[in-house]
Amino acid sequence: MGTVSKALNLLGYFNHGRLEIGLSDLTRLSGMNKATVYRLMTELQAVGFVEQVDGARSYRLGPQVLRLAALREASVPILSASRRVLRELSEETGETTHLSLLQGDQLASLSHAYAPQHATKVMMEDAEVLTFHGTASGLAVLGFADDSFVAAILDGPLEARTPQTQTDPAAIRRLIDAARRTGMAQSVGGFEAEVHSHAVPIFGPDRAVLGALAVAAPSSRMTDTQKQAIPRALRAAGLALTQRIGGVCPPDFPPMPLP
Amino acid sequence: MGTVSKALNLLGYFNHGRLEIGLSDLTRLSGMNKATVYRLMTELQAVGFVEQVDGARSYRLGPQVLRLAALREASVPILSASRRVLRELSEETGETTHLSLLQGDQLASLSHAYAPQHATKVMMEDAEVLTFHGTASGLAVLGFADDSFVAAILDGPLEARTPQTQTDPAAIRRLIDAARRTGMAQSVGGFEAEVHSHAVPIFGPDRAVLGALAVAAPSSRMTDTQKQAIPRALRAAGLALTQRIGGVCPPDFPPMPLP
Repeated sequence: MGTVSKALNLLGYFNHGRLEIGLSDLTRLSGMNKATVYRLMTELQAVGFVEQVDGARSYRLGPQVLRLAALREASVPILSASRRVLRELSEETGETTHLSLLQGDQLASLSHAYAPQHATKVMMEDAEVLTFHGTASGLAVLGFADDSFVAAILDGPLEARTPQTQTDPAAIRRLIDAARRTGMAQSVGGFEAEVHSHAVPIFGPDRAVLGALAVAAPSSRMTDTQKQAIPRALRAAGLALTQRIGGVCPPDFPPMPLP
Repeated sequence: MGTVSKALNLLGYFNHGRLEIGLSDLTRLSGMNKATVYRLMTELQAVGFVEQVDGARSYRLGPQVLRLAALREASVPILSASRRVLRELSEETGETTHLSLLQGDQLASLSHAYAPQHATKVMMEDAEVLTFHGTASGLAVLGFADDSFVAAILDGPLEARTPQTQTDPAAIRRLIDAARRTGMAQSVGGFEAEVHSHAVPIFGPDRAVLGALAVAAPSSRMTDTQKQAIPRALRAAGLALTQRIGGVCPPDFPPMPLP
């Protein structure tokens, strides 16, 4: 791994549970030696990617990432395009909706909307890294990803986040095949217990899968009516979002079932 | 400069006028050799910071920066805190307002609001890099920055964006001193012709200056009434924003004039 990748991988240790990280923790998490971590963080700090909190005790992400994100959004305005789609899909289904995007070899949630109808709802945090094998979004993405990418995921560690998480590679492969065949994936409790999610892939202008649009409902609210209504609304919303960002579905993407 | 800084400085060449950059242009802009630029871009691509457009012909920023920006905002929610402040300040002054933030040694606009009152207005683009010496925001920041930072800016090239841009270091030094003394800076046509801007600094919890809040009006609309009203509204909005992000003004920051 090159120096640049080593430095940028250090940024990967920041998440909602770890918005600030000290040098010792970064050293432990990365497995690199402390002097190297310190040197890399000093370089990242010089360009505004991280900054020190409370003098020298810990680091957090720096403001430079905001400028880059604004430029990315000017280039591929998927977050702004998704806001209305998410809001309308939440209103229509009465459940939480979210968009996740592929970032290198990770899938992260980046935008969400809550429905006004219910006092209980599935809560989302933006920038949460999702597992591929344990989420509807991940399976929907894998259904349309390169074979080598799918193989690498199935080959890697397959963490069980809940007792319901499927971790058998052959069984996951069948779920991926089903997602490819139907254009939609489901997960019941694979990432969070008591959550039933549906997801569809979102495609870019080059027909490559960019991420997934999902509806996440408490399992207890998944009536027979909802089991019909959510897939129908989600399919239409996914196609609308792909279209709004100038994306094109691949030729073998299954068409919408007739109403 | 270390390898990491070299790679991340390449990201600095992306802006609203250059959302996509080819390898040859990056080589020319950076002054590095093509093989080095290619190697660094390949590393940045592997971690999702950039991606290739149209096969291999050019690069644009990648989706990874969106995840990092969402985490930065969870850590220091200045963009979300600024939205309401900007909107109210635009409504009150009838003019365009914007927030810029320090990012390493750059100042970039990151959020803005337009007023509904007028058909003509100063247009803003987020993620635009502002000069320190030619903008009210830059001068407001320099008024409260470290001496060494101010010295480096005055020592560097001082570009004249318009015939009105002040480029004499001694004269700029006097504008910075005035910003420090009054807690506010002005620029008349220093960045864009026919634009009269006012700006106040925004401070973080450690009393360090983070950026600036500004009101930008067409010079032709700066009546005597507005010359009184804008500074008054802007001072109050700047203090409110500093407070909303948990910031504290430095001890020598001038208090609000009595009404």
